[in-house]
Amino acid sequence: MSNTDTRNALEAGRFVGSAIGRNYPSEILDAAKMCLVDWCGVALGARNEEAQAAVRKVAMNWGTNGDAQVLLGGKAAPAAAAMINGTMAHCLDYDDTHVGSTTHVSGPTVASALAVGTHIGASEADILSAIITGFEVAARLGNGAGQPANLRGFHATGIFGAFGATAAASVLYKLDEARARNAFGAVATQTGGLSASFGTMSKPFHAGKAALNGVLSAELAGEGFIAKEDLMETDGGLSEAIFQDGGAALAPLDFNDEWEITRNTFKPYAACLLTHALIDAARSLSDQVKGKEIAKIEAVVSEPAVKLAGKPNPQTPLEGKFSLAYCAALGLSGYEATEEDFCDERIADPHLRDILLKVEPKPTAEMAQTAARIVVELTDGSRLDADIPLALGNPDNPMSWDDMWRKFEPLVEPTLGDRTRELYDLLRNFEEPGSLDKFVSMVATR
Amino acid sequence: MSNTDTRNALEAGRFVGSAIGRNYPSEILDAAKMCLVDWCGVALGARNEEAQAAVRKVAMNWGTNGDAQVLLGGKAAPAAAAMINGTMAHCLDYDDTHVGSTTHVSGPTVASALAVGTHIGASEADILSAIITGFEVAARLGNGAGQPANLRGFHATGIFGAFGATAAASVLYKLDEARARNAFGAVATQTGGLSASFGTMSKPFHAGKAALNGVLSAELAGEGFIAKEDLMETDGGLSEAIFQDGGAALAPLDFNDEWEITRNTFKPYAACLLTHALIDAARSLSDQVKGKEIAKIEAVVSEPAVKLAGKPNPQTPLEGKFSLAYCAALGLSGYEATEEDFCDERIADPHLRDILLKVEPKPTAEMAQTAARIVVELTDGSRLDADIPLALGNPDNPMSWDDMWRKFEPLVEPTLGDRTRELYDLLRNFEEPGSLDKFVSMVATR
Repeated sequence: MSNTDTRNALEAGRFVGSAIGRNYPSEILDAAKMCLVDWCGVALGARNEEAQAAVRKVAMNWGTNGDAQVLLGGKAAPAAAAMINGTMAHCLDYDDTHVGSTTHVSGPTVASALAVGTHIGASEADILSAIITGFEVAARLGNGAGQPANLRGFHATGIFGAFGATAAASVLYKLDEARARNAFGAVATQTGGLSASFGTMSKPFHAGKAALNGVLSAELAGEGFIAKEDLMETDGGLSEAIFQDGGAALAPLDFNDEWEITRNTFKPYAACLLTHALIDAARSLSDQVKGKEIAKIEAVVSEPAVKLAGKPNPQTPLEGKFSLAYCAALGLSGYEATEEDFCDERIADPHLRDILLKVEPKPTAEMAQTAARIVVELTDGSRLDADIPLALGNPDNPMSWDDMWRKFEPLVEPTLGDRTRELYDLLRNFEEPGSLDKFVSMVATR
Repeated sequence: MSNTDTRNALEAGRFVGSAIGRNYPSEILDAAKMCLVDWCGVALGARNEEAQAAVRKVAMNWGTNGDAQVLLGGKAAPAAAAMINGTMAHCLDYDDTHVGSTTHVSGPTVASALAVGTHIGASEADILSAIITGFEVAARLGNGAGQPANLRGFHATGIFGAFGATAAASVLYKLDEARARNAFGAVATQTGGLSASFGTMSKPFHAGKAALNGVLSAELAGEGFIAKEDLMETDGGLSEAIFQDGGAALAPLDFNDEWEITRNTFKPYAACLLTHALIDAARSLSDQVKGKEIAKIEAVVSEPAVKLAGKPNPQTPLEGKFSLAYCAALGLSGYEATEEDFCDERIADPHLRDILLKVEPKPTAEMAQTAARIVVELTDGSRLDADIPLALGNPDNPMSWDDMWRKFEPLVEPTLGDRTRELYDLLRNFEEPGSLDKFVSMVATR
């Protein structure tokens, strides 16, 4: 540890300290607004999830005092609001993923920015700058390190997401460089989130706790808390604790690189990411198979897709999200694979069940996880096929704003009804002054 | 992970679920009250420490609503009070250490028990039961695992202390076995605290955050939060994440073993634990050297003592705590090495400086860390020596209640003045009904 440098801390501190008033290229602002829209959609869509309900109950029982907006639930201190909203955003596992860091960056980062932003009444421009700054810190620090962290037992979102939340809060609290470095030191030493918790309420809670820890760390630094500053270095204490075999490390920070927020992956479909290319392929054939009888369906996918999302005969909505067969059936039948397509009623639909039992997965070593091919044999002997080299939602095949609306609408409509489009337009144009107040008024109550 | 059993979770859940109304042998209750007295002394002694001031400011700014007593500072929700008080208890690094787990168990555990206990107005007996239960869970789970955890980058107090805090809060919230298991799962997945933070404000904050996490986890489980239950097993997710080489593991829990609370080590002196045996040795000679001129002092100690606490010519109070020479000079001069003996005035005392420069450390491979020998040569040619095979404060040479009073009084007197003895007596007899209310009234304000 004695030779640890402080380059990452200096870079991150400087990037935070210079965020207020920074100009961004329009495509970067656009990328941030897409994070914001997606974040709100998936968070509001979690309105009935038990994980967020428990976190909400506890944090609201703390009876905190503040103006931070809790989604669908009044106001609170920023730390409490961030924990609730951050948990909501990751409940459906439908939030964005920065693949380079294997981190759901927006979950905790946007939660932190909106919690502090609503509390202090920040400008819309500053909130967007906080989101971008947090995204870049989390994504760049975690580049290449997220998957190794997950494999060693630590949930990358709990680690790098917390740095994003810290950066976002630090921007809005206007911490100077030195205090921002201490905020990062404080959050580094709180790192938690075990990957062994995947599949329980703890996974979304990791995003919420990362958001709370980020806000807490920025607040501590603002009050003069002095932490170890070199914990986020490539050879620092956090990297050594998580990557004990030295087989990976936190990445060196360089904020002159390409913007990582443009390398974000969104999920158009409410299912495991490994099913997405196959859904694309199936959907592309839905018009052609309509009204025809299917004999057999070949799903040529990656090996991990079959291993992790290969449930052949799903019985519950959650199993459906991890079933290539059900997802292919949805796509071939013209469904958009939104959250409402993974409900008890649809999973029991005889038409879909009939199709899904005809799906034969063909795992193929050469197939990328973001690619798939589908071959449909009809009972009349004809064959239809479709190739998807890169699934929708990846940086090089990004969701359009129309795609995002198709995702957003069913997630938010149960709460906002015919005001859903209004919220979507508001967030899509969030830089317009007054947006924050309107946002607050729209998401304040159920 | 697939073969992970759930024995530890079942044992811990059962132990928590059966804590209310459990009878304890009188020596166990006495051990718990000594933890309580020591905890209050070192926590109140931290009244001017900047680390607790920053945490206090932030947590009180949250404006939580609750009846949990914050030391020297009003009331708050239990989670916030636990974080403040837990940080206070570890600020001076003067709190108890369970050597088997290398964990400062009481710091977070008592913080959690008093926060929840004052909030709900628990009985004194239940609070003591919560402290004992928390102590046993933390100490037994960490037995043999604390030092390996520290060496791999994670602060044992942050890990095992959080389990103690969770158990204590779960007892007082009267969680049943199943909910207690989920509370442990929730706290396991929040594990944090990097040992690379040692020497900064983050170290005491680890104890405070462990206390908050413990209260939060118990509260979440009380609201139906479902966590992974097998994270605390010897082959579970927490053990795998922390001990990545498999060279150590969380301990198997067995609550029919000896009580670990009787194996607790208290620090009689406000210095590094590695100086304690030498202080004992020096103090035993103070009457004999009084008024005589010293030529040379040999300090025969363990090798780690010289390596970690060997500052030959300390200039600041903190350096004095890590200086065998200064500690020997204090002892030979009849000082009791309490917190007030490590102040700017005393460290500059010419008489003490004269003596400390005569100390020659003799690191010896055979000497235990809990032992020391001192040899004093006087200018008249005579020699005095003293052997301490086991320093005061260790389980087999425990501090008496009189020793504890000598520690407590200078820590608390600046706050409570001539009511210091009253608080000491109150805590020493804490099982008497009405003690909690009196405690609250005495520590409520500065």
